Amino acid sequence: MAKSGISTAVIKRLPRYYRYLGELMESGTERISSNELSKMMNVTASQIRQDLNNFGGFGQQGYGYNVEYLYNEIGKLLGVDRRHNIIVVGSGHLGQAIANYANFERRGFVVKGMFDNNEDVIGREIRGIRIMSMDDIERFIKDNHIEIAALTLPKHEAARIAEKLVDYGIRGIWNFAHIDLSLPGNIVVENVHLSESLMRLSYNLTTRGK
Amino acid sequence: MAKSGISTAVIKRLPRYYRYLGELMESGTERISSNELSKMMNVTASQIRQDLNNFGGFGQQGYGYNVEYLYNEIGKLLGVDRRHNIIVVGSGHLGQAIANYANFERRGFVVKGMFDNNEDVIGREIRGIRIMSMDDIERFIKDNHIEIAALTLPKHEAARIAEKLVDYGIRGIWNFAHIDLSLPGNIVVENVHLSESLMRLSYNLTTRGK
Repeated sequence: MAKSGISTAVIKRLPRYYRYLGELMESGTERISSNELSKMMNVTASQIRQDLNNFGGFGQQGYGYNVEYLYNEIGKLLGVDRRHNIIVVGSGHLGQAIANYANFERRGFVVKGMFDNNEDVIGREIRGIRIMSMDDIERFIKDNHIEIAALTLPKHEAARIAEKLVDYGIRGIWNFAHIDLSLPGNIVVENVHLSESLMRLSYNLTTRGK
Repeated sequence: MAKSGISTAVIKRLPRYYRYLGELMESGTERISSNELSKMMNVTASQIRQDLNNFGGFGQQGYGYNVEYLYNEIGKLLGVDRRHNIIVVGSGHLGQAIANYANFERRGFVVKGMFDNNEDVIGREIRGIRIMSMDDIERFIKDNHIEIAALTLPKHEAARIAEKLVDYGIRGIWNFAHIDLSLPGNIVVENVHLSESLMRLSYNLTTRGK
């Protein structure tokens, strides 16, 4: 699955490299050594060198990495060099939080619309993003080249709606519903299971207290 | 760090076992074989047997696992058999989404208060949970035995406030700010970096499309 033979472990770490490199760019840093980056990111310099060697050719001995080049290369790999149209399905608090998070747009993720079944909220706007009826979702996905759906529906509705979204042409589902979706293999599902995250926190609290 | 020698990889999978076992209990299932669980969870039966063998003695050959027993044992390990008092720091949309998610309470995670610096929102209530001034946070943490703080502040405030929270007695930080916190080693930090999750989704979309 990894592109050009890059391991999934490295891929998992890429967004974090991207974040640090972005901050370095903002602060005007043009070059950075693996040792300096190591201190900032709290990982070993040798891991950084190994990871970044995957992209080849832009770390030079004694001279460091070109921050902007590396930032852009990793950005391309992460697909943030192009625009992704998103809809948010479910306009509860979590759906609204996503729609309100303007920072995603800086990375090319643009929320084009929100959908809900609740007549009371249909027609409202969140940061200029309209909440529409689920009846209109198929047409909207097709007319607006929507690629990603953030799914913030309750568990009992999520599986059925996810299947429909795929039928309508959605290729990636950002799943906040606390359920594992079974979808065709070409569909990308990225889960954010908040209650599982909270349980991991609780597990670590319980263990460290002993 | 893992308790009684259980590997961190197993620990990571525990919340998912806990979820499936909870659903089985709700549907009245008393026993389940590793093969049946394997089909439901889409992992190999041998992994399930290996994972659950860590807890010893409650899988019997040809007889299956006792669902309720296993659910309760895993629950104890995850610390959800006791109450955890939480505060939400930052009352924006994400903070409100967390405060509104009543399901956390079923697992013993009780949001006792919210905090913000914005005078316009102080005094408001979200699902009966009061938004208070940051000036009152130290006393509130101490008086209410608060263990966990969900941190939903903007990046530029998060690091400074996290340090204060630790000084005031917080032991676990559920960090939604897009920053790595440097805190003493006995403090548990669980990160939810939504934009990194979205970039992983985008990476997988980009790669599969090729």
